[in-house]
Amino acid sequence: MTSKTQEFVQSRRNLLKTSAAAVWGSLLLSGLSPMLQAKEAPKISPKGSLPIRLMNNENPLGMSQNTKQAILDNLNNASEYLGYDKNSARTHLAENIGKNLDFKIDNVILGNGSSEVIQAAVYAFVNQARLAKKSVQIIVGDPTFEYAELYGKPTGASIIKVPVNSKMQLDIPAMQKKAQNFKGISIVYICNPNNPTGTIASAQQIENWVNASSKDILFIFDEAYAEYAGADFKSGLKYIKEGRKNILVTRTFSKIYGLAGLRIGYGIADPQVIKDLQNFIGLDNINYLAAYAGLAALADKAFAQKSIQTNEKSKKVVYDGFKELKIKYIPTYANFVFYEIKGDLKVYIDQMKSEQILVGRPFPPLLTYNRVSLGTPEEMQTFIGVLKKFRSQGKI
Amino acid sequence: MTSKTQEFVQSRRNLLKTSAAAVWGSLLLSGLSPMLQAKEAPKISPKGSLPIRLMNNENPLGMSQNTKQAILDNLNNASEYLGYDKNSARTHLAENIGKNLDFKIDNVILGNGSSEVIQAAVYAFVNQARLAKKSVQIIVGDPTFEYAELYGKPTGASIIKVPVNSKMQLDIPAMQKKAQNFKGISIVYICNPNNPTGTIASAQQIENWVNASSKDILFIFDEAYAEYAGADFKSGLKYIKEGRKNILVTRTFSKIYGLAGLRIGYGIADPQVIKDLQNFIGLDNINYLAAYAGLAALADKAFAQKSIQTNEKSKKVVYDGFKELKIKYIPTYANFVFYEIKGDLKVYIDQMKSEQILVGRPFPPLLTYNRVSLGTPEEMQTFIGVLKKFRSQGKI
Repeated sequence: MTSKTQEFVQSRRNLLKTSAAAVWGSLLLSGLSPMLQAKEAPKISPKGSLPIRLMNNENPLGMSQNTKQAILDNLNNASEYLGYDKNSARTHLAENIGKNLDFKIDNVILGNGSSEVIQAAVYAFVNQARLAKKSVQIIVGDPTFEYAELYGKPTGASIIKVPVNSKMQLDIPAMQKKAQNFKGISIVYICNPNNPTGTIASAQQIENWVNASSKDILFIFDEAYAEYAGADFKSGLKYIKEGRKNILVTRTFSKIYGLAGLRIGYGIADPQVIKDLQNFIGLDNINYLAAYAGLAALADKAFAQKSIQTNEKSKKVVYDGFKELKIKYIPTYANFVFYEIKGDLKVYIDQMKSEQILVGRPFPPLLTYNRVSLGTPEEMQTFIGVLKKFRSQGKI
Repeated sequence: MTSKTQEFVQSRRNLLKTSAAAVWGSLLLSGLSPMLQAKEAPKISPKGSLPIRLMNNENPLGMSQNTKQAILDNLNNASEYLGYDKNSARTHLAENIGKNLDFKIDNVILGNGSSEVIQAAVYAFVNQARLAKKSVQIIVGDPTFEYAELYGKPTGASIIKVPVNSKMQLDIPAMQKKAQNFKGISIVYICNPNNPTGTIASAQQIENWVNASSKDILFIFDEAYAEYAGADFKSGLKYIKEGRKNILVTRTFSKIYGLAGLRIGYGIADPQVIKDLQNFIGLDNINYLAAYAGLAALADKAFAQKSIQTNEKSKKVVYDGFKELKIKYIPTYANFVFYEIKGDLKVYIDQMKSEQILVGRPFPPLLTYNRVSLGTPEEMQTFIGVLKKFRSQGKI
């Protein structure tokens, strides 16, 4: 039994030992929560420990205590629509997101995850091109996060995939050339830091392109991992502050705030761009509980800080292990690491699964690499331990 | 102080009396939920009692106890993506929705509310028309639920509004004529029962049209209120069972199951239609907690039955009151009633608000009518009481 498995079994045992019925009984019958009276003692299950989830770039700390509390505080009203009232949690969340980044509420759009904002942007920009009877193409890195492509393709827009450069960075000059050679509207999807390679794009190259860009080029900067990226990373937000109207930056509560399952993300752009996007984003798109969770998460600077520190510690565990094993890896600016695996990638992924570790799926065309999300330092020690075992068994 | 206000104050008092800290302390430190240890005693707020919400057609019972329990059971894992695995709650929910209506999982699409399914259908059908270089129009009732129009208009599709008939029903023959006279694709949005009028459309007229329809006519039957409608109502589901490929039926967990804030709805259609819609619906669109809540809600037949019974009781309170006051109303097949208000509608809505009752907004062009959602029987007695007061004051 691994130490991880022991932990898991121990936690289950504690669960069984608890005399939950008596405790809940007194709580619930006390009048605190008349809507929540259970026939049996309710239980709040602990976060599962196995398998170790290193495949989705989730936050290994889960969500913060304050965030859970916000959900409990609002559970009894979640049968109501969140609404768009100026006193609603929806409005407060958009306001606070804006304040946090020094923008106004009319620079902010909320999405059912940042993926919905990307979706709305693709539809809005493709639609603008169509109504103006112009051709439209979507330029993406290869490999990169695939949602811009997945949303764009069914619209009939051309998808232009530009391979990452030898440093595994988005090849901005090559992407720029694709736009220059096209008569029509180019939607440029820049995932920065890039998923799955973990690299940041050259800030200077981006600046050159943005400064040279006409209104026929629409940039979507997907900055889902920005909070992990450190001082070398330059956000696209500065171009919006400069007043540019062809820039959208998307960010998410799924990573640093640990709310992946709750689906909260947002976009920042010029107010006119936000209005265009509002036409293509879902009405009533924000979950009632998620809005309150988002408000609590945004206010909890200590948790965000802890997430970053945990990520740094885990990164060191993984880097040290890779160095010891002479495994090539790409230094990361996010909460995952892209590293080289010799041999059959699918076999490797399955072998990891047999060890109760879920790692990233294949990201073609880079099929000699795997993406591992950064879990807790302890989880990453387990991961490195398994890699060492695989090495001793000649599997890697 | 009204009896409603007294109830509210009483409930707040109970809240203050509770020694929650001690109870939660023992619960949380017992090892039941290591991820949920609070610095302070957490509280679960009761559902607010005032103002009385009769403006959004929400379920006045809130959500069921089983549903809340499902949320608590899964809260500690809501930092994870729900995913699309065959063992995921997402897959189970789609399966169970299908089983419940005698369909297979490939007949089902899940949405972030049924509104997202309507959105995806509008985009998919408009896009099909565009790629085939055909014109496209969206035919809707007037008044009706506006989301098909709101999603369709920005795409450039023509919106054709067809007034309801003298019985406040969708005028199906008039809508059919609009489609017949159009060279191109017609998307027909049929909200049945219709919001805000509460009427059902003629089943015979719909059948005639569907049987005569070509593949250039795409029907969206929005059946958000189907569960309240009773035996006279005929669902569009039968046309999908017959194998028709130009039919989509949408339904929701927001009404009968009381999950409006959680955003869960679905569409039923031929598997090929479902595939087309999957291309235009959000990826990762379902909230983790909502999926588990949906599963619990679907299994809780007793709660759904209670919702219907409560609605029937409230309907009787309102009908009796309207009759006594000689207020004209449209017999409803849903959880709201459309009734005549003489005088300025906005003034009336504000006067109701002053009495702590929120009623429906104006629905042009029918500005001599108001929509009141059916709350609990007690809430509707309060509503009728206020109407009587208004009558005695000469306000209505």
